[in-house]
Parts: sequence; structure tokens; C-alpha cells
Amino acid sequence: MDVIRRIEDIRRILLKLKAEGKKIGFVPTMGYLHKGHMSLVERAKKDCDVVVLSIFVNPLQFGINEDYDIYPRDISRDTQLAESAQVDYIFYPGAKEMYPKGFSTFVNVENLTEVLCGARRPGHFKGVTTIVLKLLNIISPHRAYFGQKDAQQVTVIRRMVRDLNIPIEIMTVPIKRERDGLAISSRNEYLSKEERKQATCLYESLKMAEKMILQGERKSEKINKVMSKSILDHRLASVDYIEIVDSRTLKKIKTIKGKILIALAVKIGKTRLIDNLEMEI
Amino acid sequence: MDVIRRIEDIRRILLKLKAEGKKIGFVPTMGYLHKGHMSLVERAKKDCDVVVLSIFVNPLQFGINEDYDIYPRDISRDTQLAESAQVDYIFYPGAKEMYPKGFSTFVNVENLTEVLCGARRPGHFKGVTTIVLKLLNIISPHRAYFGQKDAQQVTVIRRMVRDLNIPIEIMTVPIKRERDGLAISSRNEYLSKEERKQATCLYESLKMAEKMILQGERKSEKINKVMSKSILDHRLASVDYIEIVDSRTLKKIKTIKGKILIALAVKIGKTRLIDNLEMEI
Repeated sequence: MDVIRRIEDIRRILLKLKAEGKKIGFVPTMGYLHKGHMSLVERAKKDCDVVVLSIFVNPLQFGINEDYDIYPRDISRDTQLAESAQVDYIFYPGAKEMYPKGFSTFVNVENLTEVLCGARRPGHFKGVTTIVLKLLNIISPHRAYFGQKDAQQVTVIRRMVRDLNIPIEIMTVPIKRERDGLAISSRNEYLSKEERKQATCLYESLKMAEKMILQGERKSEKINKVMSKSILDHRLASVDYIEIVDSRTLKKIKTIKGKILIALAVKIGKTRLIDNLEMEI
Repeated sequence: MDVIRRIEDIRRILLKLKAEGKKIGFVPTMGYLHKGHMSLVERAKKDCDVVVLSIFVNPLQFGINEDYDIYPRDISRDTQLAESAQVDYIFYPGAKEMYPKGFSTFVNVENLTEVLCGARRPGHFKGVTTIVLKLLNIISPHRAYFGQKDAQQVTVIRRMVRDLNIPIEIMTVPIKRERDGLAISSRNEYLSKEERKQATCLYESLKMAEKMILQGERKSEKINKVMSKSILDHRLASVDYIEIVDSRTLKKIKTIKGKILIALAVKIGKTRLIDNLEMEI
């Protein structure tokens, strides 16, 4: 496995492999790899001949009061993990390589980014779509893999790829969870022992919602209230949002019907965690 | 020569040609082809094995009070002209093909689009960059050809291509002019006989500026005044803007130095025309 830091180098390597007819799978990450990322790699290994994993903590997608500076980074651990998962290339560019002087082009998916996390993190998705488009143009893979944990991100990226006619297939991989149900995330690293215990409340509330819906409840408001209450029963938890939306448009729905997404963001202490559940009724 | 209307069809055709090792040259246009477009085709024919010309009057780049509805269109004449210039494929999509229901992704080059024409036509360049990115993704040519007549457009597109790591070479082709110096444009079609006569004032004022600079004048303000006066000597002309800017940043300069762009937009009657001159001092 090679770690490549320059755009022109990864391009040259991949152009050669593509000319040989190799299928390229791409897993973009911000590093600090965990089982969630590994499940993306595993899936890419199954589908493709060559797997490229990128590691880039993208400053553009962090708000000024967010955790860019303290976001966990450990390239040597990441390299080992990627190697053991049989990743073929790590693309690990510096910030100047990605955002040269005078950089001023941004991609924005309107509508879909003004709700859920987008409403709470202004500019976040503009940063995400811009860096993802850049990476897709650099790697130019056949397929790119994203985790369902960032459900809104996947929806936004799929829309971007469709709208801009990007000839790449976007693959979504299910959420990986700890044994107690907590969705795996690099930000779980921030949690104290007590916070880690209470962090299961996100998944528990989603399971409650699922049960209610399976038992026939169709009113979003009722489900929302039960979820909210169950989260606030945890001393260290505060709700950022709980929303039940149409899975495709991300618009709030009053009555459960069709393909829906139940999404929430909860602060456990100072750490903001997200989780979601998709259902079809 | 074939006229292709569907994205998937042009893609399939070009994928096959690329697999055979053919170099693809791409000339995006809004149709109503003239000698300016033909000079782009000519250049593409020299450089590439296959030339694709697109015709799409892009609603997104017209303001609500602009001339989208009356913009001249003549596909049968265009087809003949393209055929005689040995274009290999015309890509001629409909608006629904390019902007399907729910379309909501936009590309914007900040800074460079807030000056010159961008300042007078809000949203125009967002429309241009969005459609050009879409077309580049659909055609995926080796080289794409743009006319220097739209100098700001070329600068903006070059910046987008660099910033988003689009692996396509952008080629600029010099302005084509009528015998009396008027830059060739589809919008010249709008001019009455008397307006057509007075429309030479754009080029004349540029030549005046050039002469002043060659004779040693270095103050933008002075040059600007002379240009302005020479245009306003024409009864049907009114100045939209005259600016002398740094050719790369498009920022106004007080003192002529380095690579500069003298750009202007002038209304002749109701028709807005643009022209420009690049110089290096």
C-alpha cells in the first residue's frame, strides 16, 4: 500500500490502472479510521479491483466554532488499519494541495442543505459538496462509498452527482454500531466514560420510534415527543433536533408514509452526535 | 455528422471513441453559430480527432429581465454550418434533459464573478459555471474551447477547472471581428442598420486605449475617460461599464502594468454588447 500526497501522483497512478481496465473504488474519509470506514472499504474491495481511501480533514466543512482543530487525527494508526484492510492507495493531501491560493469555487446543493444538520451547521454541506466533487474529479473512480450514518450527506451527494452529471456510482453502506447500538463515529472519541454510557440514548430513541411505527403509529408529532422525552431522561443529553422527513426530499412529514428518514442530533455533554433510521411504510 | 439529444447517447458514443484512443475536442455554444464559433471549431479540428459542438440556450444564465426568450435560435442553419465545418457530433439537449425536476445544485466562482459583467448581471456566471461543469462532465473531452470575446467567462471557467480539479484543458481562441472591427456575436443580430454602424464604437475605443498605452500613458483613469468620451460621441450608445483590470484577478488597477484586460459593455439602443482587449506591459 502506498500513501500518496500529491494530486498529480495519484492521478498518474490511477490513469495507468484504469487504462489496464481496473475498476476503481473510492472511500473518502477524514481519517481516524474506525469500523464504519472499514465496512466501506470491505464493500469497495468486493466491488472493485483497486481501492483508494482518502484522508483529509476538510477545513471548509467545519464552522468557525466547531471542532476542526481538535478533530482526532492519527495517520500512522490509519495507515496500519488501511493496510490490514487491503486498501491499495491512501490519498493524503495537505490543505494547500487541496485549496491553493486564490481558491474560490464552491458547489452548493440548495434546498436539501437547509434542513436537519444543514440548518444547524451553516456552510457545512457547501464544504462537503465542494471537497467531495474535488476528490471525485481527482480520483475519478467507478464507484464511491459513503456511510448511511451521514444520511443527509448521502442524499446531498447523490443529488449533486445527478444534477452535475458526474459519471460515478454512489454506493451507500449501512450504519456500523457498537454492541450497545451507538453508531460508530470518530467523534465518539470525545466522550467521557459517563457520556459514553448515556450516548446510547440516540439509538434507543430510534428503536422506540421504529416500534411505535411498526405498531401502527402514524403521527410524526407523537413519535417525536416520545423520542424527545426518552433522550431528555438522560442527564447529559440535550436535543439539537429530532425530525421525521421524506427520505428523498428531506422535507418534514406530518404523517408517516412511504420511505421515511428519522434523523436526530443530540449533544452528549459538549459532543454533538447524530444517528438515523430509514423505514418504508 | 449526428445530432444527439440525449445525455446517455452522447456519453455512449464518446466512451467508445475514447476507448479507441481518440482525442475529443469540445465547443460549447448557445447556437446561432457565427464566425466566432467557427474559429473555435477550426482550432478544435486541428488539435483533436473528434469535435463535439453543443447547442443549448441555458436559461440559468439569463436574468429575469434579459433576452432568454428572444435569443436567436436556428437549429437547421446551425446544423448546416456545423456540418460544413466538419463537426462530428452536435449535442443538442432539451431544457428538461439538462435541468430535471428537483434540480438544485449550483457551482459558483466567488470574487471573480462580482466584477465587470458579473456585477451587472447577478446570477449570470453561476448559471454559466453550472452549465459548463455539467457539459464538461457529460462530454468529458480532452480539451474545451472558449472565445476570448467573453474574457471574464474564460477567466471564471479556468478558475473553476483549476479549483475543482477538472482534468480537462481549457483553450482560449482570439476574438473574431467583422471587417470594421465589431466583435462577432449572436446579439449583433438585434441591431438596426443605424445601430450596427454605431456599434463599432466599442472596438474603436479599445484601439484608442491601446494606442494611448503604447504611447506611454499608464493612468487607467485617463484612458477610461477618453474611451468613455469616444463612445458617448455616438448618439445611440450608452456605457454600461469600462474597466481596466488585472487580467488574472479581474481587480481594477489604477496604473497600467503587467497583463491587463480592458473590458467594456456598451448598450447600443437596447442591445448590450461587450468587447475587450488584453495587453502585456
